Amino acid sequence: MPTTHGRLFALGVGPGDPELLTLKALRLLRAVRVVAYPAPEHGESFARSIVAPWLGEHQREIAIRVPMRPGAPPGSVYEAAAAALAMELDRGEDVALLCQGDPLFYGSFIHLFCRLDGRYRIEIVPGVSSMTACAAVAAAPLVTRDEAFTVIPATLGRAEIARRLADADAAAIVKLGRHFPKVRQALDESDLLDRARYVERATLPSQRVAAFADVEAAGVPYFSMGLIRRRRAIE
Amino acid sequence: MPTTHGRLFALGVGPGDPELLTLKALRLLRAVRVVAYPAPEHGESFARSIVAPWLGEHQREIAIRVPMRPGAPPGSVYEAAAAALAMELDRGEDVALLCQGDPLFYGSFIHLFCRLDGRYRIEIVPGVSSMTACAAVAAAPLVTRDEAFTVIPATLGRAEIARRLADADAAAIVKLGRHFPKVRQALDESDLLDRARYVERATLPSQRVAAFADVEAAGVPYFSMGLIRRRRAIE
Repeated sequence: MPTTHGRLFALGVGPGDPELLTLKALRLLRAVRVVAYPAPEHGESFARSIVAPWLGEHQREIAIRVPMRPGAPPGSVYEAAAAALAMELDRGEDVALLCQGDPLFYGSFIHLFCRLDGRYRIEIVPGVSSMTACAAVAAAPLVTRDEAFTVIPATLGRAEIARRLADADAAAIVKLGRHFPKVRQALDESDLLDRARYVERATLPSQRVAAFADVEAAGVPYFSMGLIRRRRAIE
Repeated sequence: MPTTHGRLFALGVGPGDPELLTLKALRLLRAVRVVAYPAPEHGESFARSIVAPWLGEHQREIAIRVPMRPGAPPGSVYEAAAAALAMELDRGEDVALLCQGDPLFYGSFIHLFCRLDGRYRIEIVPGVSSMTACAAVAAAPLVTRDEAFTVIPATLGRAEIARRLADADAAAIVKLGRHFPKVRQALDESDLLDRARYVERATLPSQRVAAFADVEAAGVPYFSMGLIRRRRAIE
């Protein structure tokens, strides 16, 4: 790792409200000349939109275009993105890589990290995760005392979701989107539907909090989550 | 909820580094005249120490003294604290309640929330949790893709910890402290000891990252965590 190389700062930029950026992420964002972020194939990057108020004209931007089709993006997407970042770092540029939520909690950053770790100086700045943000806007305690907590991706099969719910004191079901009907069924089968909250686009102006049972499947976005507690937080 | 009442702001102040405060928490902290925080029976409050650089002389402070003995503190402690906060709110004062990490993720705030919710206007500001902070300083991906994630309190019994580990793709074991030897044994029995990382006091100057297997039980603080992944994050 030659010290003439630039440093990569993986900045957790939080769930959506620009004010949920940390002081550290803001300082590092302002200090670099190159800012990279994931983006859909066409259109705006959500991570970029969060920090847009602070981007300067002197900063060069690299959009990492990731296909939003179902299933994991091909490794070639991340290979190419890692190569593009490596080129900047080799030239001595410090790069801020924007990560919505937290970089290491279901973050696409992990794909880049695994390709660049050991070759470059990487500093990871943790961010407010969508999970704690959803809990905050729903005013719903996530987990307390001696409880175990389970995070379940909605991409799993219905039986597997139900099996994990059966063993959970408290749980978050992430990445709902088109998996909503399957998750609703798993919650219903587990007798937990009435105890589940639904949150979409937490901390954004368009945020929505509802009882899970009241939500229509049509239009449930990817950025939505179910929060479940088996018991009251404090009896 | 009369609007003449003050508002309660539960501010997640992050894991320890003052720079991991969010812009929103800082704004609200500076705006109030009354700042409350949990503290041990004797000595300094950790949450207060995080925001100490920004406390002003015009602000009145309320230390909520919580016994640090094993087991849950008696409800009377939180009853008294809720009453003290209610008195300020009734007088029309806005109060910032400091919460280390995130307020709703194993936070003692939950005990106060359950006593004040519905009676006062409460805004919860999510913070960077110790879990994502530990992952960041260890450069250890927490969870990715279709994996489920399990958070296990070290206060559970050894067999229960091992049982939950057996079903985990990835896990964090929180609140290690004096439970360290039991957790080490559970990891060993689960053939996961060699895959576990240990982090204490993440993001503080005294932070330590180590292989779990290399850590001596003596001196493991409460603010420590084990991070476990069954597989590499990206194969």
